[in-house]
Amino acid sequence: MKSREIHLRKRPAGIPTEDNFALVTVDLPALQDGEVLVQNLWMSVDPYMRGRMDDIESYIPPFQLGEALDGDAVGRVIESKHSDYQVGDRVHHLKGWREYAICCGDGLDEVMHKPELTKIDTTAIPASAYLGVIGMPGRTAYAGLEYVAKILPGETVYISGAAGAVGSAASQIAKLKGCRVVGSAGSNEKVDWLLNELGIDAAINYKTVDNIELAIAEACPHGIDVYFENVGGPQMDAVLNVMNDFGRIALCGLISDYNTMESAVGPKNFAQILTKSLMVKGFIVTEFDARAGEYEKQMAQWIAEGKIKWRETVLNGIESAPQALIGLFKGTNCGKMLVKFSEET
Amino acid sequence: MKSREIHLRKRPAGIPTEDNFALVTVDLPALQDGEVLVQNLWMSVDPYMRGRMDDIESYIPPFQLGEALDGDAVGRVIESKHSDYQVGDRVHHLKGWREYAICCGDGLDEVMHKPELTKIDTTAIPASAYLGVIGMPGRTAYAGLEYVAKILPGETVYISGAAGAVGSAASQIAKLKGCRVVGSAGSNEKVDWLLNELGIDAAINYKTVDNIELAIAEACPHGIDVYFENVGGPQMDAVLNVMNDFGRIALCGLISDYNTMESAVGPKNFAQILTKSLMVKGFIVTEFDARAGEYEKQMAQWIAEGKIKWRETVLNGIESAPQALIGLFKGTNCGKMLVKFSEET
Repeated sequence: MKSREIHLRKRPAGIPTEDNFALVTVDLPALQDGEVLVQNLWMSVDPYMRGRMDDIESYIPPFQLGEALDGDAVGRVIESKHSDYQVGDRVHHLKGWREYAICCGDGLDEVMHKPELTKIDTTAIPASAYLGVIGMPGRTAYAGLEYVAKILPGETVYISGAAGAVGSAASQIAKLKGCRVVGSAGSNEKVDWLLNELGIDAAINYKTVDNIELAIAEACPHGIDVYFENVGGPQMDAVLNVMNDFGRIALCGLISDYNTMESAVGPKNFAQILTKSLMVKGFIVTEFDARAGEYEKQMAQWIAEGKIKWRETVLNGIESAPQALIGLFKGTNCGKMLVKFSEET
Repeated sequence: MKSREIHLRKRPAGIPTEDNFALVTVDLPALQDGEVLVQNLWMSVDPYMRGRMDDIESYIPPFQLGEALDGDAVGRVIESKHSDYQVGDRVHHLKGWREYAICCGDGLDEVMHKPELTKIDTTAIPASAYLGVIGMPGRTAYAGLEYVAKILPGETVYISGAAGAVGSAASQIAKLKGCRVVGSAGSNEKVDWLLNELGIDAAINYKTVDNIELAIAEACPHGIDVYFENVGGPQMDAVLNVMNDFGRIALCGLISDYNTMESAVGPKNFAQILTKSLMVKGFIVTEFDARAGEYEKQMAQWIAEGKIKWRETVLNGIESAPQALIGLFKGTNCGKMLVKFSEET
């Protein structure tokens, strides 16, 4: 059986381009006992994948040249040699970037240190949401707010990249927890969505605003207690100037720096971390995997109650996967960026 | 009665110079009921005072032009109109930078939000130590290690500015708590003191070492779990590269930046806070004032057991106070920098 998959052809300099990737057709081997063949329906592209394209050891190993990339995906079982999985089951796994994946029913993913394969229930929640609000991005948002920053009702929470997959989940979770929420995004369309559909208290188009610090200060008349940081760069300087004493910063991402070829520079006013007694905690969602059940239960309830909305930017077909990833760094997504492989859901 | 005191004559640009200060003789008013007249024996100069010389609102208000500076001091009561204080009592208070201070026996210091006057027991501990190991610098070291970084036995703790008042207390506390301690300092004499008298595990002269990052990595073969930061600047970049995942940084001071006229720059590799899931917490010791008793009891016991050493760099006379403060930024002190006003103790 043939499958098409995306390989890393060469490592990028700066923002990835199409020629960093190769679309390769491979022959799948026959299933072994304990294995399950999954037809992928959706795959996720996420900002952290950019780091794995560089040949640098980090919290997660780099992608290998000439091999398929990987990442979160959902699909349906089309053949099974494991008694727990039946043809037609919907599953989540970590072998994205390919049309068909062979997963080990009892296996642990070597990179993510979690089960290779998990059944998902798509009766009330669509499969694609397992790559978004109820999946890794949503868990990341929840962990950053609840376990890292420990938000309290009435606090002002500033969220950069608020229209992204993590940011839009964080925006709504913070609202549901009783916070005043101010977000930033890179287009008026995103700002409108944040204000008028997600219902946050204020939103800033950081690309067009005259004075970002003034805009933030005006949107946060009582200062900022919690900063959920997805972006980095000059916006961080502006936010630090508006932080309240004893504020907390959940450092989730620095997407504005991921493609920087020149040496990145830390916040110019780093000293405010000292003078304002701020707490900055970098985190990777896997740190909180043991508490994922708590999140999933809460989020399923919020979804059932209609309290959480989400939006997807969808590109079609495995061949569009590189463009989907590249789009993250150009801000072409509103909400979760996904690649769709099939009309089935 | 006459007293001499040091006024702020003009605000500094960069490292303070003598002409930022003025030695002024004033007439003291007669004591009012409830007041106590203290002859200062010792006064403290501390790095945070540099920030107060600028006209910038921070966690502590700026010194005012044409007025006396203030800060920690110890002295003896020479006249009292408060029943709790008798002539001869040794006291700690917050009106340094002058030979005689009128303190309110029941008063709260407006700047520090703590009692203006506290009796000290000099039977077992010399008065000057109340400005050092058992005073604010020692409390700062303890708070940073115990309450901010939460050190654990067996961890590697890296302390910058390890031969300063805070750093030398932190070095010994971390050793007493069972950590492997590596410190940096700016002279071979300081390095010798750290290694051979304070007994830390490794020490680095950051001014003469060829490659600071290599030196730190060699001194910390298991990486750095806790970074007690007093200094900032390029050393922070080097330390971040050697930090272990989930490491904690107690951000106590950034003395290398306090006199920077150009815009300071944060750590170039700030992103390691994210990728290594580090926690950085800025702190001011007053945050932990409620737990000061716990520290003082522990430190008094360690001193009684001979487990804590300290060193003082002493300048004599009120007229030397500006030079004492300036010396902190040139590294002329080993251990606590003090100004001595009298042969009495």
